[in-house]
Amino acid sequence: MTAAGRSEATGGSNVPKKVAIREVCLRDGLQIEAPIPLAAKIGILEAIVATGVREVEATAFVSPSKVPALADAAELAAELYRFPDVEFSALVASPNGAKRAIAAGLTSIEYVVSASDAHSRANVGRDAGQATAAIADVTRIAHDHDATVEVIIATAWDCPFDGPTDPRRVIEIASAAAELGVDRIAIADTIGTTTPHRVSTLIERVRPVIGDLPLGAHFHNTRGAGLASAYAAVQSGVTRLDASVGGLGGCPFAPGASGNIATEDLVYLLRDSGIEVDVDLESAIAAARVAQEAVGHELPSALLRAGDRILA
Amino acid sequence: MTAAGRSEATGGSNVPKKVAIREVCLRDGLQIEAPIPLAAKIGILEAIVATGVREVEATAFVSPSKVPALADAAELAAELYRFPDVEFSALVASPNGAKRAIAAGLTSIEYVVSASDAHSRANVGRDAGQATAAIADVTRIAHDHDATVEVIIATAWDCPFDGPTDPRRVIEIASAAAELGVDRIAIADTIGTTTPHRVSTLIERVRPVIGDLPLGAHFHNTRGAGLASAYAAVQSGVTRLDASVGGLGGCPFAPGASGNIATEDLVYLLRDSGIEVDVDLESAIAAARVAQEAVGHELPSALLRAGDRILA
Repeated sequence: MTAAGRSEATGGSNVPKKVAIREVCLRDGLQIEAPIPLAAKIGILEAIVATGVREVEATAFVSPSKVPALADAAELAAELYRFPDVEFSALVASPNGAKRAIAAGLTSIEYVVSASDAHSRANVGRDAGQATAAIADVTRIAHDHDATVEVIIATAWDCPFDGPTDPRRVIEIASAAAELGVDRIAIADTIGTTTPHRVSTLIERVRPVIGDLPLGAHFHNTRGAGLASAYAAVQSGVTRLDASVGGLGGCPFAPGASGNIATEDLVYLLRDSGIEVDVDLESAIAAARVAQEAVGHELPSALLRAGDRILA
Repeated sequence: MTAAGRSEATGGSNVPKKVAIREVCLRDGLQIEAPIPLAAKIGILEAIVATGVREVEATAFVSPSKVPALADAAELAAELYRFPDVEFSALVASPNGAKRAIAAGLTSIEYVVSASDAHSRANVGRDAGQATAAIADVTRIAHDHDATVEVIIATAWDCPFDGPTDPRRVIEIASAAAELGVDRIAIADTIGTTTPHRVSTLIERVRPVIGDLPLGAHFHNTRGAGLASAYAAVQSGVTRLDASVGGLGGCPFAPGASGNIATEDLVYLLRDSGIEVDVDLESAIAAARVAQEAVGHELPSALLRAGDRILA
């Protein structure tokens, strides 16, 4: 685990000196795309590893029929030994998924729990309480195999079916996860609806209930506020952010509308804020070009078009 | 003038309770587009007035050969009497432009001064010092005709030719403008390169040198950080923001890459922050659709695609 610790915070403020970016283009980015060949994924992987990023979400061990783009999870996992300096993680939605990920050689598990019952049922066929209870199993499976577990709380701000999520649901899941011994916690704006003020407000409530565990956040730019939300998260003490080169992700039928926050746009913003990251800006733009070529349609990243500015 | 005052600030913080949005789609939005008919501009105008916005930048009195899209400035000005509840402004780049705007019936003048010599020369053929000195003439012309003057400091963070702008240049121009009796001041990220931390830092230095004058800010989303920068500006006490429905503006040959911050995306973000605005969100999305139709190409606004979320 390469989590940037809270203890590194600048001055007396909550703002961390360093933020760990996890590159999620291979999982969240590709998830709703038409499946691409394994070789194309390896091409993207080589490009993102060249950015200097230390953490990569490689794939998900979920139902291949529900997410055909990630049906090659085990095959991809078999190639990861080629990048020994990177911590690879895989997303799972059940204890069984965790077993498959471990069997494929992953040592870092992300277990998703929806804070909303309607989303949880639609996503995994269980309500939020059942999904929360399964944290214990996932954690045992992972720890028995020397793997780490991060609980990602999905629909942390809003549910596509139920509307606003009660923050108490998020806090309950975060507390339970901390108590059950997970290694990290993250909160996710699954449908890209949150905004900076709501971000700060929720993080201020979650942070105190999870002790010293690293806290991450995951944003989509669906309503234009992804970077603003990410910056608010960092100002509230989050030390880990997910991002995808090119802003890959979201609906391919509405290009530019959605997607994860773009790694290169995030790096550009954080660089100006004096916050250290492992990712090189120009390499991230280059990787975004590789990803754009691989999926065959325009990606919404701003830097991919505009490039870096003239620097001093 | 309908400036939201600093005295309205929330609690003890700098964050204002209300932010005045100036709709700039008819000027900055259309500026680099192929000229559209006057009737189409009136169509956009009717749609943006229907949003409830109280301030609209209607046009610019500049060289028609340099900005053919705004060559109909006087004709458009002649139609503005139909919208008596809106404060219309026009951008000028010289005392002569101010005279033309006044002659056309405008009562609110925006005078642009570049903080960078290279941009100033490219834009108006004068260096920054000469452009600053002319604030006196512009102000006299305006005040002699009961019009107000806002000085907009362009390239406040970066120049497309010279790179980073020395903040002292911005402070000098702002101080001079305040001393010369202008009514409002704004700082503009002309080429869309700034980021929230740089925004806060500059505003913290500008705010104290302009007394009680209202301070505005103008952002482009060229590098994805437009909304994050606008939110940082508001948190630093800016009470006026420019925005364009649809995110119109920027290069039509790189759709989605640039443009002003989108009015509807800004309203969405500010609504969640408990900051009052005059602009209705759904009406702004409808106006963005009208603007998109009028220019005939896709606009980069996020809300135009994604729409509002399910609310409580």
